[in-house]
Amino acid sequence: MMAQAQFSEQDAKFMALALSLAKRGELSVSPNPSVGCVLVSDQGKLVGQGFHVRAGEPHAEVIALAQAGSHAKGATAYVTLEPCAHHGRTGPCAQALVNAGVVKVIAATLDPNPLVAGKGMAMLEQASIHTSSGLMEKHAQAINAAFFTRMLTKRPYVILKLAASLDGKTALANGESQWITSPQARRDVQLERARSCAILSGSGTVLSDNPRLNVRADELSPSNAEAFAKRGKQPLRVIVDGQNQLNHHLHLLQDGQATRVYNHRFDSSIANDFVTQVQLDRKQNGRHVDLARMLDDLGHEQINRVWVEAGAKLAGALLDADLVDELVLYMAPKLLGGNAMELVSTQTKTHLNQALNAPISELKQIGPDIKLRCQLKQRG
Amino acid sequence: MMAQAQFSEQDAKFMALALSLAKRGELSVSPNPSVGCVLVSDQGKLVGQGFHVRAGEPHAEVIALAQAGSHAKGATAYVTLEPCAHHGRTGPCAQALVNAGVVKVIAATLDPNPLVAGKGMAMLEQASIHTSSGLMEKHAQAINAAFFTRMLTKRPYVILKLAASLDGKTALANGESQWITSPQARRDVQLERARSCAILSGSGTVLSDNPRLNVRADELSPSNAEAFAKRGKQPLRVIVDGQNQLNHHLHLLQDGQATRVYNHRFDSSIANDFVTQVQLDRKQNGRHVDLARMLDDLGHEQINRVWVEAGAKLAGALLDADLVDELVLYMAPKLLGGNAMELVSTQTKTHLNQALNAPISELKQIGPDIKLRCQLKQRG
Repeated sequence: MMAQAQFSEQDAKFMALALSLAKRGELSVSPNPSVGCVLVSDQGKLVGQGFHVRAGEPHAEVIALAQAGSHAKGATAYVTLEPCAHHGRTGPCAQALVNAGVVKVIAATLDPNPLVAGKGMAMLEQASIHTSSGLMEKHAQAINAAFFTRMLTKRPYVILKLAASLDGKTALANGESQWITSPQARRDVQLERARSCAILSGSGTVLSDNPRLNVRADELSPSNAEAFAKRGKQPLRVIVDGQNQLNHHLHLLQDGQATRVYNHRFDSSIANDFVTQVQLDRKQNGRHVDLARMLDDLGHEQINRVWVEAGAKLAGALLDADLVDELVLYMAPKLLGGNAMELVSTQTKTHLNQALNAPISELKQIGPDIKLRCQLKQRG
Repeated sequence: MMAQAQFSEQDAKFMALALSLAKRGELSVSPNPSVGCVLVSDQGKLVGQGFHVRAGEPHAEVIALAQAGSHAKGATAYVTLEPCAHHGRTGPCAQALVNAGVVKVIAATLDPNPLVAGKGMAMLEQASIHTSSGLMEKHAQAINAAFFTRMLTKRPYVILKLAASLDGKTALANGESQWITSPQARRDVQLERARSCAILSGSGTVLSDNPRLNVRADELSPSNAEAFAKRGKQPLRVIVDGQNQLNHHLHLLQDGQATRVYNHRFDSSIANDFVTQVQLDRKQNGRHVDLARMLDDLGHEQINRVWVEAGAKLAGALLDADLVDELVLYMAPKLLGGNAMELVSTQTKTHLNQALNAPISELKQIGPDIKLRCQLKQRG
């Protein structure tokens, strides 16, 4: 039966360990969720632990059970996400826990997919295993915010990255803008890219900067570089090119990594094995790609987390369309002053209550700069 | 003789206490510096402590000596600032320490005034008292940054307060701007005003908002309200009114608190006992008040710390003239978006190396907002 949540200090300790294990998969596990599992004997001894490394490989529970062997019998399992009940590329983890003789399962959170939520727990309960959930639930949901968002909305979790001076400027009036933020902040951007399934930009930015929009693993810490390497591929580059402005000379259409272009019509001059061109039905009111439908399409492609590095116009259009879940703002301790270029070009607002609220969830110093994480949407 | 600085853990403990005492005077002591003093017997026992409350009243050393009585004989004095050697409204503190039989004096920092620096220490040394300085010097200098700046430059320390959204906007395109930041941030502004000798604004802001630009003591914490009350007066309001636009209906020309107006010509219609009008020789290039000369004048008036709450133009002019020592930026977790009003209207820059560097010295969350303190000038 589903017990009322009554958790001990020991429970908290082991779930914290399971959550830290789950985090270790975050750079490789996409499009699956990050999951950690810890098995503890009735004597309170840790007998097995594991985390899900990447899609197609064993789930966290299976790794922990293999490590525990016969010690799994009578053990308690701490899992950061409800064990699966379906036959996917691996068998159902709930059944594996039953088979191994685990007597109690504590899940940090249930499966967010409303169609399967509770099924894993039910499978365990039918085998008379004590189950409970909700221990460190907020933390567990935060770790998989992007995956959960796709499960619940069929669209990716969209993070808009902005970099500005203290006075909210991105470039001088004449366009000069390189290196406003510090090398430390730019290394942090590499980690954020590595956490993402896709990097989104617009053709204007791509044509002006000719960026690669990939993860430079040598700018990650050694442990992150190793974790990222397990994924075996770079994030998908996604370019909004509503007016077919891209050309085949650009780095990101030449480097052999996947790029997905949303454009007006198929352009054979940029076609190659790594470039996918998508034409959506377009909004009636202009030559713009329908950004909401683009996100539907990316959700269908199992993209959980989209990291946006775009100019003021595309950033503004995403904000105006209410498609941004989170803002990550790097702020350099500089003043660019009068007439410098603004950060986001949204539609002009006429009342302050139209201002977008972006409560700060994280604030830290990165070298000389600061990094703010702000939640534009609150779920759950 | 002046000993090489060799400080013990006990020294650090007592100097930290002296510094915390000094801070207790910060809302009342202007135009004098904040000073704390601790007397410790040769047994390591605290025998006296004091801080300077306000100009004209006993210095920290005198209060601590009075408390210690005969226990001062043989004691060590920890002072946050070199004891004075001159006969002011009180006798020289260095002589008082000698008379009381103190055997050792540790000063956090020397007097910043180059004309008197070292004289207090010399007076002590001539009486065979062991002296040293430099213990927690940075902290001691930070506490009196404004006073020290006036001593060294004859001008006040100028702090520009800015409040903006995450995208560096202060108001919508139509001017709507009230209450961008939170009540908590606005209470913090009251404390910053209370710490200041003067509050500077421009006639444009005054005419559009009709502000009082005073300290509302009921928005301070009870202990700060009590400390501020000891000063017995509000900060001086300073208004830049280069085109004589002010009128006598405005709150700050009517409320019986002192206001100093820098204008083009004397205006008898706004004259009263609390309003001082100053006409400086004007810059050749226009109808603007010469801001550097205004600060010279305020330094002459013994104004240590100027807190600027101004519009984008005056803020930009102060920045362009390199007259701002520190920036305090309150940032609300909102996006105002396209075409909203910018934070500072400086001259347009053409190269990024013209951007003003403003390294962050303090970063904290205040309610939903963040507060950044940035140093535009580094002294000492």
